[in-house]
Amino acid sequence: MPDKANTARPDRRRYIHPINPLRLLLFGRPIATAHAELTRLRKLIALPVFASDAISSSAYATQEILLVLGAAGLWATHVHLYKALPLDITVAIVALLAIVVVSYWQTIYAYPSGGGSYIVSKQNLGASPGLVAGAALLIGYVVTVAVSIASGVQNILGTPALHALAEHQVGVGVALIVALCIANLRGLTETGAVFAVPTYLFVAVATLMIALGLLGPSVGHDLHLQNVNRTLPPGTYHTTDSVAGLALLALVLKAFATGCSAMTGTEAIANCVPEFREPKSSNAARTLVMMAVILSGLFLGITALAVKLGVVYGHHGHYTSPAVIDQLSSTVFGRGSVLYYVMQIATMMLLVFAANTSFAGFPRLAAILSRDRFVPRQLANQGDKLVFSNGIVLLSLAAIVLIIAFRGSVDRLIPLYAFGVFTAFTLSQAGMVRHWITKRGPRWVAKAAINGLGAVATAAVLLIVAVEKFTAGAWIVIVATVALVVMFRAIYRHYDFVRSRLSIGAGVPFRRPSTPDARPDRSPAPSAGGHRPNTVLVLVPSLHRGVYPALEYAMSISRDCRAIHIEIDPSEVPRLVREWEVNVGEEIPLVILPSPFRSFIGPLMGYLDQVQRERANHIVTVVLPEFVSTKWWHGFLHNANGPLVKYYLSQRPGVVIANVRYFLGEPDGEPSPGSV
Amino acid sequence: MPDKANTARPDRRRYIHPINPLRLLLFGRPIATAHAELTRLRKLIALPVFASDAISSSAYATQEILLVLGAAGLWATHVHLYKALPLDITVAIVALLAIVVVSYWQTIYAYPSGGGSYIVSKQNLGASPGLVAGAALLIGYVVTVAVSIASGVQNILGTPALHALAEHQVGVGVALIVALCIANLRGLTETGAVFAVPTYLFVAVATLMIALGLLGPSVGHDLHLQNVNRTLPPGTYHTTDSVAGLALLALVLKAFATGCSAMTGTEAIANCVPEFREPKSSNAARTLVMMAVILSGLFLGITALAVKLGVVYGHHGHYTSPAVIDQLSSTVFGRGSVLYYVMQIATMMLLVFAANTSFAGFPRLAAILSRDRFVPRQLANQGDKLVFSNGIVLLSLAAIVLIIAFRGSVDRLIPLYAFGVFTAFTLSQAGMVRHWITKRGPRWVAKAAINGLGAVATAAVLLIVAVEKFTAGAWIVIVATVALVVMFRAIYRHYDFVRSRLSIGAGVPFRRPSTPDARPDRSPAPSAGGHRPNTVLVLVPSLHRGVYPALEYAMSISRDCRAIHIEIDPSEVPRLVREWEVNVGEEIPLVILPSPFRSFIGPLMGYLDQVQRERANHIVTVVLPEFVSTKWWHGFLHNANGPLVKYYLSQRPGVVIANVRYFLGEPDGEPSPGSV
Repeated sequence: MPDKANTARPDRRRYIHPINPLRLLLFGRPIATAHAELTRLRKLIALPVFASDAISSSAYATQEILLVLGAAGLWATHVHLYKALPLDITVAIVALLAIVVVSYWQTIYAYPSGGGSYIVSKQNLGASPGLVAGAALLIGYVVTVAVSIASGVQNILGTPALHALAEHQVGVGVALIVALCIANLRGLTETGAVFAVPTYLFVAVATLMIALGLLGPSVGHDLHLQNVNRTLPPGTYHTTDSVAGLALLALVLKAFATGCSAMTGTEAIANCVPEFREPKSSNAARTLVMMAVILSGLFLGITALAVKLGVVYGHHGHYTSPAVIDQLSSTVFGRGSVLYYVMQIATMMLLVFAANTSFAGFPRLAAILSRDRFVPRQLANQGDKLVFSNGIVLLSLAAIVLIIAFRGSVDRLIPLYAFGVFTAFTLSQAGMVRHWITKRGPRWVAKAAINGLGAVATAAVLLIVAVEKFTAGAWIVIVATVALVVMFRAIYRHYDFVRSRLSIGAGVPFRRPSTPDARPDRSPAPSAGGHRPNTVLVLVPSLHRGVYPALEYAMSISRDCRAIHIEIDPSEVPRLVREWEVNVGEEIPLVILPSPFRSFIGPLMGYLDQVQRERANHIVTVVLPEFVSTKWWHGFLHNANGPLVKYYLSQRPGVVIANVRYFLGEPDGEPSPGSV
Repeated sequence: MPDKANTARPDRRRYIHPINPLRLLLFGRPIATAHAELTRLRKLIALPVFASDAISSSAYATQEILLVLGAAGLWATHVHLYKALPLDITVAIVALLAIVVVSYWQTIYAYPSGGGSYIVSKQNLGASPGLVAGAALLIGYVVTVAVSIASGVQNILGTPALHALAEHQVGVGVALIVALCIANLRGLTETGAVFAVPTYLFVAVATLMIALGLLGPSVGHDLHLQNVNRTLPPGTYHTTDSVAGLALLALVLKAFATGCSAMTGTEAIANCVPEFREPKSSNAARTLVMMAVILSGLFLGITALAVKLGVVYGHHGHYTSPAVIDQLSSTVFGRGSVLYYVMQIATMMLLVFAANTSFAGFPRLAAILSRDRFVPRQLANQGDKLVFSNGIVLLSLAAIVLIIAFRGSVDRLIPLYAFGVFTAFTLSQAGMVRHWITKRGPRWVAKAAINGLGAVATAAVLLIVAVEKFTAGAWIVIVATVALVVMFRAIYRHYDFVRSRLSIGAGVPFRRPSTPDARPDRSPAPSAGGHRPNTVLVLVPSLHRGVYPALEYAMSISRDCRAIHIEIDPSEVPRLVREWEVNVGEEIPLVILPSPFRSFIGPLMGYLDQVQRERANHIVTVVLPEFVSTKWWHGFLHNANGPLVKYYLSQRPGVVIANVRYFLGEPDGEPSPGSV
């Protein structure tokens, strides 16, 4: 028995998968299991990896609030409301974000092995809510990738230099997803640094813009509002319209719900605690707070600046406003200045890279579900770089399907967006309420109250999203969630069945049958050692040197060997029989099975039926002689019965298939010692 | 040894491929090899099967001649030429057809086992010309299917009732090819009757039309010519233009070359002599003559009628003439009459079914090439219905690719059409010239002269086609022909290499090694019978009941067994070692192979290297325990290492793979006797 290698730096060449240059180029050198700690993330890198999604939403959340309010014509009819509401709504969302973050802070410490909504819901509310949360989150991650990529592509292709590519938004989107997929298969530590650049750049420039804009003179004050008023035909909105009571409430709620898209991505950090360096929980919690502070600051700052400058966003007749970030940075930095371009480029890159947060969250959640046997086991396999490779590939494929199905359109994808995320939030926080009630502990009432408030608020947002976006696409997400939960349960039942059939109870040791079987059988020679006797059949399509090793092997494992020839072409049989008599003789009898309908499978199966009936206690080994040629395409040139025969044999209990190969390239088809 | 079944009607259930209802519905009951004679074709059925392609060309050959002459404006400038030339050209083509038919008549008797251009060229001119003829013919058959289907679809979708489908010509074409493919897999005898209907209907109605039109009063005389003259703006063609000398010769040659598309399909009968009933040669030759007589008669009649009625065909400005057959039948029968519609429908169906001639010719030629080892052997396999199934499927796939690549457009496909066919004609007739010169015999000079005349004439047509259509698509055919010939030769070399490696010379009998190997090795127990000792390795991912049959099997075939565990997850190893000690014990040692990079393949291959070095004279058997679940999709739920391990093992000389399966659905995973 070889010694177990346990050195600090094991010899790669001995242990890794046979490497090929493409694999090395795409994925880099593999990392040893023992070096897992090296792949853990420092906070500075973890922030852009896990928070780029959340932070990127500050680039569009304000805009979406202004869009809802603007579409109601508020900027024309009730300027005082239009200038007060956005900040009020932003403050409310930031407060909700604070509640959610506090909840997840508590969750990170309560579930340091990585949990998020699935674990919290499952442990506190039961399996079904847990699976619903898991399904909703998986879908949410996929949609996030599709939306981020689609919006990033829209921004990229919006630049004049790339207008020629505008038709190819699906192709460009797919290419970006493939690139993200490969980057993530290389591992987060190596890609983290790449993601850090645009995230920190965006944060820095946006902060500078907010500071300059808010502290500087009110130069551009109401410029944009006046601009739009000038462009629109007079009387588009009647100043006598009144917005009050329920209508105002509905409008505010709608703007609030839309602005809540800022909160997607919050889940990722709680789900990925094990990816952080020790002390994991503390580092993850601090990263979560950093993320929340940055997001809140940018979101509040951008909304305040937009209000100060009187920005209007929306489609007014044929006039479409520039993006809010565009309006703000061109006013503050001056259109065409270096900082304006830096801001634009950082925004675009951040939107594309925001998809990467899902690449961190999805595979980890899938691995947790896999560990609990709700999804296929392969999703828990770690690849060369200790990442969950199959989850990364699955996420990429699903996102590519979405991009293609919705033709890369952000407008069509958006309705799928918030539903999954807010389902997970609500279940997670309801679970935390139950957690405190069950576990109690110091100040449990206050903690439960905070989580309860969060659960009610996110449930309200969920309800608004579900009702308002139902026909636009939320129904797809609901159907997909239910389908996923049904699938999870079916997979679980299967694994449970397999485990029950395979498990070794205390009473089922492996017994070597030490007494020869007493049952009378017609085997000419009892096999050595008292084991079940072995009847060996060698399939012989024609007699050539490639058959010899198979015959030799058959004789080496049993004294009861026969050669079987299926008579597809009767005219070839006499020659075979003659050659057999001359070259092989009577040591191995040759059985000719007639096949009047030229089927290979039918006669073989019929003969096996007969053998297994006559020798019920025997193992039957079918030896398949194969020859291996020197080039892969040669396989197409030889009769393709092999796979079919193997398939039908593999469906028969009691039959062992042995493949004996003859290598055309080797002298005499045998290995020369040490030549391998 | 069971008796060879040789009854007149063998029991299907015992011998056929395990049948499923879909297979039965699509392809019908299989036919026994012994009943092959039943599938031979009567002449009445053989004619539509092999001649529908040739006969269908009478539906458009006249039209193409008129198109060439009309495009030159001849009907406006030189009415006397326009009324004389078509019949002259038709007579010339019919004369050429007669020469080709006489040549093939001689070929059918000279090569009764089926030959056509490939055999004739190969035997008389050498391998390379033979392969060129074979490649050209294969391509010609594929193009014929694509052109026939595309033109049939164009006709079908041209009817007002189906205008809605006009956008889907590619889809309809692909569907028709799939339908033809299935019909041919069912066998020619069963589909022949279907094809007979439109062929004979077309012949009958067209004959009636020609007779009525030529013998009746000249009612519609020059009606169409006058119509077109009225529609065109005056001065489109100047009546002072003169067509004379070389220009006239070029025009006539061009019209002649275009009209020669009438001759495609002539090859099929000579290629398929064995499909006919006895006496095969005589029946085939008579069918060939019947075909030639019908085609010549219809072609001459339709041209004569068109000339008599002054038909003009072509695109004149924005005006496109109706098809010539349409013009003729509407004039003779009256537009809207029952016979008019019968004529239209029979024409459409015939054009679609013309593709079927290729379905008879291509698979037979491919099988002949396969017998000579120039194409993969699978193309010589006969399916349930004694047809060359793989050839039929290959032809269908190639034609579908063409239809898709050329978007179902007849205009784009036509330039590919004649080149392959005329290459084959030329080579075949040149071969026949050589045949007579070599063989002599009665009246050999006359025979060689006839073939020589044919060779020169078809070579001239070939030259005209190649030059004129080169940029329009003939270059594709030329490139494809060369590529096919190169492929034929590579495949032949491979089969030759394999045969040389595998053949059993007089000096290579199968010797049972009767003396134990003298080489010292470390095997603990020499195996019984003096064979090469067998080292057996059982791969054990974890210990469960599914592993037990594999361990038992390993012990039954050798005393030198080891279990191998690849340590992907080190945390699971202690439990495995403990369970092994309790349940299996020391009978089979458990070897743990470290895998610091979580690769399954690397450590396994490294260990095999070591074993094969230490025991150079041993066979190494790797036993793979597998469990078989109850539903096919369960395969996705278990670790997918199996196929990868099998692939890498299959690349190693000296290693035998044995699959031992445990059936979850069976009690204790074993077969109950007779339960299969």
